[in-house]
Amino acid sequence: MKVDVSIVGATGYAGSELLRILVSHPYVRHITAASHSHVGKQFSSQYPNLRYIYDEQCAASRIPELAASSDVLFLSLPHGIATTELTASVIDRCKVIDLSADFRMKDADVYEKWYKTDHGGRAILEQAVYGLCELHRCEIARAAFIANPGCYTTCSILTLAPLLQAHLIDERSIIIDAKSGVSGAGRNEKLDSLFCECNETIKAYGVGTHRHIPEIEEQLSMVAGKNITVSFAAHLVPMNRGILATCYANLAPHADAKAIDAAFKDSYGNERFIRLLGNGVLPETRWVKGSNFCDIGYVLDTRNSRIVVCGAIDNLVKGAAGQAVQNMNIVCGFAEDCGLEAIPAFPM
Amino acid sequence: MKVDVSIVGATGYAGSELLRILVSHPYVRHITAASHSHVGKQFSSQYPNLRYIYDEQCAASRIPELAASSDVLFLSLPHGIATTELTASVIDRCKVIDLSADFRMKDADVYEKWYKTDHGGRAILEQAVYGLCELHRCEIARAAFIANPGCYTTCSILTLAPLLQAHLIDERSIIIDAKSGVSGAGRNEKLDSLFCECNETIKAYGVGTHRHIPEIEEQLSMVAGKNITVSFAAHLVPMNRGILATCYANLAPHADAKAIDAAFKDSYGNERFIRLLGNGVLPETRWVKGSNFCDIGYVLDTRNSRIVVCGAIDNLVKGAAGQAVQNMNIVCGFAEDCGLEAIPAFPM
Amino acid sequence: MKVDVSIVGATGYAGSELLRILVSHPYVRHITAASHSHVGKQFSSQYPNLRYIYDEQCAASRIPELAASSDVLFLSLPHGIATTELTASVIDRCKVIDLSADFRMKDADVYEKWYKTDHGGRAILEQAVYGLCELHRCEIARAAFIANPGCYTTCSILTLAPLLQAHLIDERSIIIDAKSGVSGAGRNEKLDSLFCECNETIKAYGVGTHRHIPEIEEQLSMVAGKNITVSFAAHLVPMNRGILATCYANLAPHADAKAIDAAFKDSYGNERFIRLLGNGVLPETRWVKGSNFCDIGYVLDTRNSRIVVCGAIDNLVKGAAGQAVQNMNIVCGFAEDCGLEAIPAFPM
Amino acid sequence: MKVDVSIVGATGYAGSELLRILVSHPYVRHITAASHSHVGKQFSSQYPNLRYIYDEQCAASRIPELAASSDVLFLSLPHGIATTELTASVIDRCKVIDLSADFRMKDADVYEKWYKTDHGGRAILEQAVYGLCELHRCEIARAAFIANPGCYTTCSILTLAPLLQAHLIDERSIIIDAKSGVSGAGRNEKLDSLFCECNETIKAYGVGTHRHIPEIEEQLSMVAGKNITVSFAAHLVPMNRGILATCYANLAPHADAKAIDAAFKDSYGNERFIRLLGNGVLPETRWVKGSNFCDIGYVLDTRNSRIVVCGAIDNLVKGAAGQAVQNMNIVCGFAEDCGLEAIPAFPM
Repeated sequence: MKVDVSIVGATGYAGSELLRILVSHPYVRHITAASHSHVGKQFSSQYPNLRYIYDEQCAASRIPELAASSDVLFLSLPHGIATTELTASVIDRCKVIDLSADFRMKDADVYEKWYKTDHGGRAILEQAVYGLCELHRCEIARAAFIANPGCYTTCSILTLAPLLQAHLIDERSIIIDAKSGVSGAGRNEKLDSLFCECNETIKAYGVGTHRHIPEIEEQLSMVAGKNITVSFAAHLVPMNRGILATCYANLAPHADAKAIDAAFKDSYGNERFIRLLGNGVLPETRWVKGSNFCDIGYVLDTRNSRIVVCGAIDNLVKGAAGQAVQNMNIVCGFAEDCGLEAIPAFPM
Repeated sequence: MKVDVSIVGATGYAGSELLRILVSHPYVRHITAASHSHVGKQFSSQYPNLRYIYDEQCAASRIPELAASSDVLFLSLPHGIATTELTASVIDRCKVIDLSADFRMKDADVYEKWYKTDHGGRAILEQAVYGLCELHRCEIARAAFIANPGCYTTCSILTLAPLLQAHLIDERSIIIDAKSGVSGAGRNEKLDSLFCECNETIKAYGVGTHRHIPEIEEQLSMVAGKNITVSFAAHLVPMNRGILATCYANLAPHADAKAIDAAFKDSYGNERFIRLLGNGVLPETRWVKGSNFCDIGYVLDTRNSRIVVCGAIDNLVKGAAGQAVQNMNIVCGFAEDCGLEAIPAFPM
Repeated sequence: MKVDVSIVGATGYAGSELLRILVSHPYVRHITAASHSHVGKQFSSQYPNLRYIYDEQCAASRIPELAASSDVLFLSLPHGIATTELTASVIDRCKVIDLSADFRMKDADVYEKWYKTDHGGRAILEQAVYGLCELHRCEIARAAFIANPGCYTTCSILTLAPLLQAHLIDERSIIIDAKSGVSGAGRNEKLDSLFCECNETIKAYGVGTHRHIPEIEEQLSMVAGKNITVSFAAHLVPMNRGILATCYANLAPHADAKAIDAAFKDSYGNERFIRLLGNGVLPETRWVKGSNFCDIGYVLDTRNSRIVVCGAIDNLVKGAAGQAVQNMNIVCGFAEDCGLEAIPAFPM
Repeated sequence: MKVDVSIVGATGYAGSELLRILVSHPYVRHITAASHSHVGKQFSSQYPNLRYIYDEQCAASRIPELAASSDVLFLSLPHGIATTELTASVIDRCKVIDLSADFRMKDADVYEKWYKTDHGGRAILEQAVYGLCELHRCEIARAAFIANPGCYTTCSILTLAPLLQAHLIDERSIIIDAKSGVSGAGRNEKLDSLFCECNETIKAYGVGTHRHIPEIEEQLSMVAGKNITVSFAAHLVPMNRGILATCYANLAPHADAKAIDAAFKDSYGNERFIRLLGNGVLPETRWVKGSNFCDIGYVLDTRNSRIVVCGAIDNLVKGAAGQAVQNMNIVCGFAEDCGLEAIPAFPM
């Protein structure tokens, strides 16, 4: 009952985190780490944290061949590549979990508008299931092809969905002020990601234009049963990991702490990876760092009839690799927390 | 035409920054650094950055005596002390610039409610002028007693005031998501300020309850000509200095980029310390670090008919010591940027 | 075959890290977390990373009673307490693993000189086995009472021991320039540990006087078979975790890369937690963060006939809690890496 | 009596810091900022800290033309370029201060060996004066062409020179364990300089091979009057700025604190930019950050008859741009601290 898996794009931050988690997974037998730029090099020469642990060479990124030899194929590539390289025959051969944005939105036109590129994979788009485990567990279990959500989106949607589902907030009033650590930018040699450019500063970016916006809006619209738009501002914080989403919304007339607590409990009362902090306790990214947890808490701003609700995740775990493994667990019938039992360490 | 100055509370972060600026001020003759806990010790033993530069001993914090021998008296104390120690006779003797919150709000009841302490200084409260230089320059010039604004408040008010003055936003819709470096917490031995507790994490705090809220609301209400309440969430960012205020508001029907630019130019077109970045360019705290600048820029979130307007300051300079010196310059008739010419350094 | 354990001083950084590791340990049944200052409070209120995972209340720090109900008793207290509170009867009742410095040195006079305090535990000092697993595994297996080594010492001794054992360096020429993250200072409300005092700076401290010096010297002297003194300088680095020991020594005439590699392989060739990087590859703390690994590599400075050999550990894991669990595993007969399988994550 | 200056390579970290200092310099009239990659772009678009302050466009890097129109020409280029582009006619036209390594060593063969490239500028090498102001002030005053020292070298040489000059240490025993902030790596899009690769870790690099070694050795040999080699290990510290050099040496038989203090006082007693902390007080980089100071202190490791002497500078100021301006001041006959009066700010 063990599976063989492949990771395409294993030498990125999300890919390598995925490899690290899978190496300890009790039901994973063999792992192939494929890379575009490091083929033939020892994986641990790029990620010496894995010295002695995973010293195999990087394979080439030939998706069809990897699919043929894998039970589960993870794609951790820049957006746009999977739309052309992923085909129906690949999906037929093995379970595919795509960490890119390419198949997250149902509407390819929306993708093309926000990503400013053609969507070459319209033929298979319908088969993709949006892999936000807590919202779509049943569909994921039956899926062959899972679009793993983005980091900002996972955090924002999990934080807001119960309030929309229970009609406790005015859906036209949602503002998401999100903050992320720098690993979200990936292992790319960009000026903006240099230590001295990120350290000792904070900035907003992608305000109103961030590509995670349509993903958030599509999911929240499904939850609310009507079209929703949100104001979204991303911020870069001088830390390695972590996302904090501070969400603001006007309260519905009947909304109070009791109703809000009930809504969260209804949605997440049995969730392994969501920790509800309740009224008056707010999450911090340090308490989830290194784990698959999403911590959620809120404060009632009664003077303004608003709620301020915050969610915190580790962007590389629940926001990427951890959720990908959670999706694998669901789709393969493993216990949902297999390989994901890591407890947040502090200080870390 | 030179002045003698005293700083009470000189060994805090704001007090020592004030001392550092004043040491280079062309019109300051003698500086007395008074401290509660370090009397008789060399100031530079606490702040070795000032070795060779200011090696005098710390004086005792006797406000009446310091007032008698000073032209300008700066108070950089925890809130509550000045309400009892500051008297009419002190204000008669010298110009007083109080960096605490004690005399910032016109209404002592509001102070007592938010600070949960008695206001012992009601007798002199009326004489206090709110020292936000760009808004109250004329009153400051005639004042004997100046209440220097808070760090979050300076940044938030400067960022939003022109929009309210020009009626370009719905004043009931204001949300301020503010982020601060750790120096804002002062040089106090608190668990929450330890390196390992602040580093590699971000959290919200004081949501709806932060003591800078009534100060922001009072000033914005004066600007708008009607009572305003705002939603305010402070966040702690793992960096030494800097405040970024990300402000959200619904646009008035007639508000567009042209009107917004005009409003900012009307308010700040001639301001030495405000840099307007305009539409589509957002400030970052690194670009103002170490300076008295406030950088302001905005983005129109047209999909939601909102504006996202951001301000950035150095919390210890424009948010505390720098503005205190700016106030001294105004009240003493010096050029407003005397001693405040420092250019932000980068990377810093 | 499962054990019940107690941790005295569980709310410190080392104690809480120990708890975190033990919570996932397959052979640990029940854990009692005892604390001096938080008795009766939920442990996870102090360490919310453990919310939902370990929500028990903190017990009182009554060592005799805890000993009576425990198979293994961990002490994670400031130095000096265990010398008086730890008695022969406690050691008779259960295995004791002391993370303090109190019983690390064989000579109580040396302890008293460096720690400037009386050693109240001379009666039981002889029973203590120095718990540096890789050097004293056999004695540890038979011990009832283990003195867990310090963080700087673990890293320094592991890095240098093979070279001394094989007589490849001049033992009078050893210089250890060690660097540590801030968590080494513990969760104490000290001015020097504040974020703004540690961030964006580096300093040397404890040069020639650090209390880990006699511990390093005693162990290295045992290895070398003669009395050794070393020059040691500690440095504080603005990061949460990690120790890097950069060690310099004059090479013995016959020492070359081949002999050095052989010496390291002889000493550590079969060690689970030591990764040898060899000639020309130097360790970095990021690659061991969160794990029990010690990475060691070296460079030959042939122009000066010296070796520069570096070791890197996570100060809270191999330098404290991880090694304590490794000691428990040895003394209890568990596989040595039980509960210690965590792979370093990156970026973390 | 004012000068016109040009900076070639103004958009690097050192170049922009130089520009920032020169903008406030009382005797600098016009500044031309030349850049290879940003010609025609507004300088402040690359360095928004200089918005409103220096908004001129970047000029082309044509050295002969810039020399013709400048009194002082600063070169802040990667090593190797100046060896070919700098000619005798350029040096004839204006004072040249080269921040690269190209003309720092008297022996072009040594340069070629360590930098692994041809030295194309042998014809003018003899004219270059090594611009370590405190050691070569008189020659600098008469020079037309100054080779501005490296950051590690400035710190190391200033820290050790007085001890060698006074014959207080064994010159064969010198070990320099140096630590630097990340800005030393420049504004280059390199994987190793990414935030997530540098943050929360420390590593040694360039051990025994760092290119600053021959520069240190040449200068120290001149001071000592005999050939000296040193062991040198550089370390990368997760901070923006600062260099700390921890230097170890065996004491000469007659060396004691009195002799050491005298040696430092003899060398630096009248130096504006060197602060002597004396016996038992060690420098920290935070206390010099943003200034041209070099702080030096030491500890006697009497158990080992060694001295541990530490120096701290800001790598971009005294280690680059500040010293370049100091050199300009000397060569132009300005007061040596013109434009360099900045006091270190803290916390910064």
